[in-house]
Amino acid sequence: MAVPPFTYPRRLLPLFLGLFQAALLLFFALFITYDEPSAQKDTSLVANQVYSTFPFFQDIQVMLVVGLGLLLTFLPRYGFSSLTHNFLLLNFSMQWALVLQGLLHHFHHSQIHLDLHKLLISEFAAVTVLISVGAILGRASPCQLLVMATCEIPIYLASEWVIVTCLGVLDVGGTITIHIFSCYFGLGVSKALFRATQQPLHPKETPTPSSDLMSLVGTLILWVFWPSFVAVLCQAGDAQHRAILNTLLAMSASAITTVVASSLLDRDGKLSLGHLQNGSLAGGVAIGVVADMAVPPVAALALGSLSAAVCVLGFRFLTPLLGRKLTLHDQCGIHNLHGLPGILGAAASVVAVLVASKDTSGSQPSQLSPVGGNASEVVEGQWGARGAGGQALCQAAGLAVAVGASLLAGLLTGAALRLPCLARPPERLCFDDSLYFKIQDEAESPGPGSSAEEGALALKE
Amino acid sequence: MAVPPFTYPRRLLPLFLGLFQAALLLFFALFITYDEPSAQKDTSLVANQVYSTFPFFQDIQVMLVVGLGLLLTFLPRYGFSSLTHNFLLLNFSMQWALVLQGLLHHFHHSQIHLDLHKLLISEFAAVTVLISVGAILGRASPCQLLVMATCEIPIYLASEWVIVTCLGVLDVGGTITIHIFSCYFGLGVSKALFRATQQPLHPKETPTPSSDLMSLVGTLILWVFWPSFVAVLCQAGDAQHRAILNTLLAMSASAITTVVASSLLDRDGKLSLGHLQNGSLAGGVAIGVVADMAVPPVAALALGSLSAAVCVLGFRFLTPLLGRKLTLHDQCGIHNLHGLPGILGAAASVVAVLVASKDTSGSQPSQLSPVGGNASEVVEGQWGARGAGGQALCQAAGLAVAVGASLLAGLLTGAALRLPCLARPPERLCFDDSLYFKIQDEAESPGPGSSAEEGALALKE
Amino acid sequence: MAVPPFTYPRRLLPLFLGLFQAALLLFFALFITYDEPSAQKDTSLVANQVYSTFPFFQDIQVMLVVGLGLLLTFLPRYGFSSLTHNFLLLNFSMQWALVLQGLLHHFHHSQIHLDLHKLLISEFAAVTVLISVGAILGRASPCQLLVMATCEIPIYLASEWVIVTCLGVLDVGGTITIHIFSCYFGLGVSKALFRATQQPLHPKETPTPSSDLMSLVGTLILWVFWPSFVAVLCQAGDAQHRAILNTLLAMSASAITTVVASSLLDRDGKLSLGHLQNGSLAGGVAIGVVADMAVPPVAALALGSLSAAVCVLGFRFLTPLLGRKLTLHDQCGIHNLHGLPGILGAAASVVAVLVASKDTSGSQPSQLSPVGGNASEVVEGQWGARGAGGQALCQAAGLAVAVGASLLAGLLTGAALRLPCLARPPERLCFDDSLYFKIQDEAESPGPGSSAEEGALALKE
Repeated sequence: MAVPPFTYPRRLLPLFLGLFQAALLLFFALFITYDEPSAQKDTSLVANQVYSTFPFFQDIQVMLVVGLGLLLTFLPRYGFSSLTHNFLLLNFSMQWALVLQGLLHHFHHSQIHLDLHKLLISEFAAVTVLISVGAILGRASPCQLLVMATCEIPIYLASEWVIVTCLGVLDVGGTITIHIFSCYFGLGVSKALFRATQQPLHPKETPTPSSDLMSLVGTLILWVFWPSFVAVLCQAGDAQHRAILNTLLAMSASAITTVVASSLLDRDGKLSLGHLQNGSLAGGVAIGVVADMAVPPVAALALGSLSAAVCVLGFRFLTPLLGRKLTLHDQCGIHNLHGLPGILGAAASVVAVLVASKDTSGSQPSQLSPVGGNASEVVEGQWGARGAGGQALCQAAGLAVAVGASLLAGLLTGAALRLPCLARPPERLCFDDSLYFKIQDEAESPGPGSSAEEGALALKE
Repeated sequence: MAVPPFTYPRRLLPLFLGLFQAALLLFFALFITYDEPSAQKDTSLVANQVYSTFPFFQDIQVMLVVGLGLLLTFLPRYGFSSLTHNFLLLNFSMQWALVLQGLLHHFHHSQIHLDLHKLLISEFAAVTVLISVGAILGRASPCQLLVMATCEIPIYLASEWVIVTCLGVLDVGGTITIHIFSCYFGLGVSKALFRATQQPLHPKETPTPSSDLMSLVGTLILWVFWPSFVAVLCQAGDAQHRAILNTLLAMSASAITTVVASSLLDRDGKLSLGHLQNGSLAGGVAIGVVADMAVPPVAALALGSLSAAVCVLGFRFLTPLLGRKLTLHDQCGIHNLHGLPGILGAAASVVAVLVASKDTSGSQPSQLSPVGGNASEVVEGQWGARGAGGQALCQAAGLAVAVGASLLAGLLTGAALRLPCLARPPERLCFDDSLYFKIQDEAESPGPGSSAEEGALALKE
Repeated sequence: MAVPPFTYPRRLLPLFLGLFQAALLLFFALFITYDEPSAQKDTSLVANQVYSTFPFFQDIQVMLVVGLGLLLTFLPRYGFSSLTHNFLLLNFSMQWALVLQGLLHHFHHSQIHLDLHKLLISEFAAVTVLISVGAILGRASPCQLLVMATCEIPIYLASEWVIVTCLGVLDVGGTITIHIFSCYFGLGVSKALFRATQQPLHPKETPTPSSDLMSLVGTLILWVFWPSFVAVLCQAGDAQHRAILNTLLAMSASAITTVVASSLLDRDGKLSLGHLQNGSLAGGVAIGVVADMAVPPVAALALGSLSAAVCVLGFRFLTPLLGRKLTLHDQCGIHNLHGLPGILGAAASVVAVLVASKDTSGSQPSQLSPVGGNASEVVEGQWGARGAGGQALCQAAGLAVAVGASLLAGLLTGAALRLPCLARPPERLCFDDSLYFKIQDEAESPGPGSSAEEGALALKE
């Protein structure tokens, strides 16, 4: 087995990150400041903003750092990398989004006033990167992931601007702007990166019981805090209350339907952990776009059920099919968790807009975009001048823009990731923490004084 | 070893759950709606309700989904089942309670108006199922657990209605209505299900260090968030503040007393993990019924200490005794964590009511029931017309009703679970995830290309 | 191998704790009460206090009980001890601080009125113990740790009184009063306890991949909730908002700089888990003292970056050096996580005070001390009568007091811990749960009926 030696470019990662941090410091020094604490402003108003946003913000941080991190530890030999790369990419992407958003949107009097809301918007941008990574997890180097993040954030911001600000798409939970965009971006990257070579099953790719258990705990953490993610940017009051309830109902239906679908698809009626880890969350992806609309509770339940079923069916049939026919590699099955339920949610939003217009209840959905958040964007009348049909068309157009832009940009980004200097690990070194982390060689760790029995015990633990 | 083959009815679970989801969708379509967002209602009022309830609600979700789930993973080969069945039962029971409560209580103009408070009440109902399961964990099939939940929820709602609404028992943290009820219901089920056959110690029943560690983490999560569970339904203001403080004090005393008791009971002074996992929480169970009453802080400390001691003593002496004398099987020791501390708390509430009446401070305990929550239920005067003696009698009567109703109903439910179609697993297949989950056979997983060394490493992790 | 038998004083721990609980009950019975619920007081005011403090309080509880507990489980055979001793010490220290604070500060009309704020202050005191333990983790008996806590809490309260109340040091996040104090106290204890004997590398001291993973999860939990710890005692409004933002920025910069520094220091560019577990948090330690001051966002980023770099450099160079030259043992590297970044933060606060005085923006930093919290302490004018130079001098004096007092007190406490009756475990029994916990002997656990294959499987899990 004469394998060519692989030399990892060991100084590339710190160089890239170090330069980025230096540039960030410079940018912050020149352009970023806090709001002036002025006597005119009501202190209790600021305090209320903190108390109303901060708990949601913390919930979302738990989801992204702990929940998503643990979910990705299903690869048994790749736990450190999954957790650390997820954590690193979140911070890098958030800072990068902060810079770009500062440059693009928030220039007033040459200084950008930072607040919790702007950090939250940047965090939402970072989520797209964390989702896209799922398509190539374990087979890409951290440098590749950082370059991917560098490309994805500006494209996301542009696509989000087109979809929400230009088209006026309603998408409070980011179903179209975040989930669909990041899914197809990730698939595009995967396609361009791996080309036509079908990825064989790697021996280290198979989860062990203990890695699957950690991953399931990650799913449960995501499941619990998902309503905060969907509702954080809703208008306070009825719309936010409704968004929380709709999300809770959709996720509850997802949990049960996942068990039904996973059991029905198995010859022996046994559950698959991959299905549980993903299907339970599908309802949260789908509900985002209609969460604050005037949909009846039964619609949230139905959407949650349907998206879980579609997610499980996707794992069982579509992923193998895409792998065979299109040689499309999707490591974590992001197409099943974010793509298919996202499309379902977008379709539901078209229906919801059309149905709501016939309704005489006059209920007014929240008009706050998940990113803009400007009070001036509130459309007058139910759907403004465009009417329900126009709004429905816009929702569909938003879906098309998200899919098209992300696929194209993903393919280009994936091609860039093939640059040799980014050091994609060879197949035999994939899914292995020891390429990026100093791991104790346990066979030697018990030390000279330990008996064989103690070595066996250390091995076991 | 000619063991009879066991054929698991592999389509029963999805059939049951699928039909339930379909019925739920129909029920929601016909009867459930959201509140009309009306101009008259103050938006900031709704927002305040969301901000005051939602963080508590999320805390409770973390407790039930993550904390309790992890606590139950002490069975080393049954982690997936513990986590998944707990998660499934929570969702199923919550939806089922939502339906039943809708039918029973909240019919106005043929439509039920769903809000966060109603979801919370349903979640409380679901907690009873999650506790009761502890008595038979590992030896019952998921179908049996679902049938148990189907029976337990309506009986709980009826018992809660009798105890809180009819008898006027004060029990803001659900000590009597939830903990005692679910404990004796679970013991009744266990007795009727296993009859007089003493359950032998199963080889897969013994925790391993890593499963015990996960379980301990679950305990700590429950410990941290317990005050939210007790205080969420208190009247805002002094009563809620006092409930939080009392719970914190009781749980802090429990933590320390558990260490004292567990160490004293061991010949070598060593701590038992089972004691720590349960005793640390005993104070939270006991304090619920008096948390918002005008008890002094020292009473909360004493109650926490005493209940932890009783819990540990129960594990050491009572559980083996009940096993031998009554052939009563209690897998997780729910009698020690929920039964004994619950009775202690109920007794404390009798004393607290009697003492408070002699007190001239005129402090008024919160009158909100943990389930009703109607403002119209607020009793005028200290204990209304019945006086302190009457109220104390009511507390005792509530305890008696909870124990009696739950034991009887549990025995009947347990008898129903013996139906052969529900497929109780044979002893040799108990405590084993592989009956319900597709588990990778790790001996084969490393694939054909892996060397023996790699196989050994995969085995280790 | 004729090792002298070690007899653990098996009744000392329960005796100590039991007597403490009895004394605590007596003290509470005599002196502690709740606020009288009076009609004059506005209910919504109390409710608002609960809603504004309680979520922060819960976040901090999660940090200390779950996050810090898991962080300490990097010792693979010492997970139960790490989690349990951390949990026990938190509760013991909090109760002890409550007693002492009651005696010292809050005597009004012979009764102390307990509220959530006083519990929070006691929790902050307990944090110092949890940090100091890190210096001797694994080599000290629980009795030694409790005696250490008994000594450390009063000294902390005295030192905090001198630093905050007498010197008027501004330190909202406890950088000087908590982190620096506890670090040098712990190092003093370690020095006096182990004297000149260099601690050899123990075979059970080396982390395994699974213990390192749990520890990393603990770090991530701490990372997420750190802003709550820093901001909980800030003045509501602008100051709290700024403290949250500064902490988020500092921790984000820390995360990225840790990766840069750890990778640069390794020959192969690989990351060290110890660096990640600690460096990511260094920014949170340093930012505490300036979090609510009028520092620009770039200063928070720079401070976070710098402290992470210093922390990683400390692990790589300073800890081995201190071990060799001073025979100073620092098991968890608390000097790198709490000492060095703390000093950096204190220095930054001197600069911030001097710079702010030249600033004409007139922004007023929060004057609330992390412990006092009396509204009467609000200094009039920017820095009161002492001016910016005086305030800068005070910050430096506070640092000197914290280091000096803690080192001295730590050395004395460490000498006391050498008392033979406190039963320091011999070297061969260090880092081993089995000294304090009943652990199932897994080689025997599968029971007589299990085949060899099953035993192997049990061993694996």
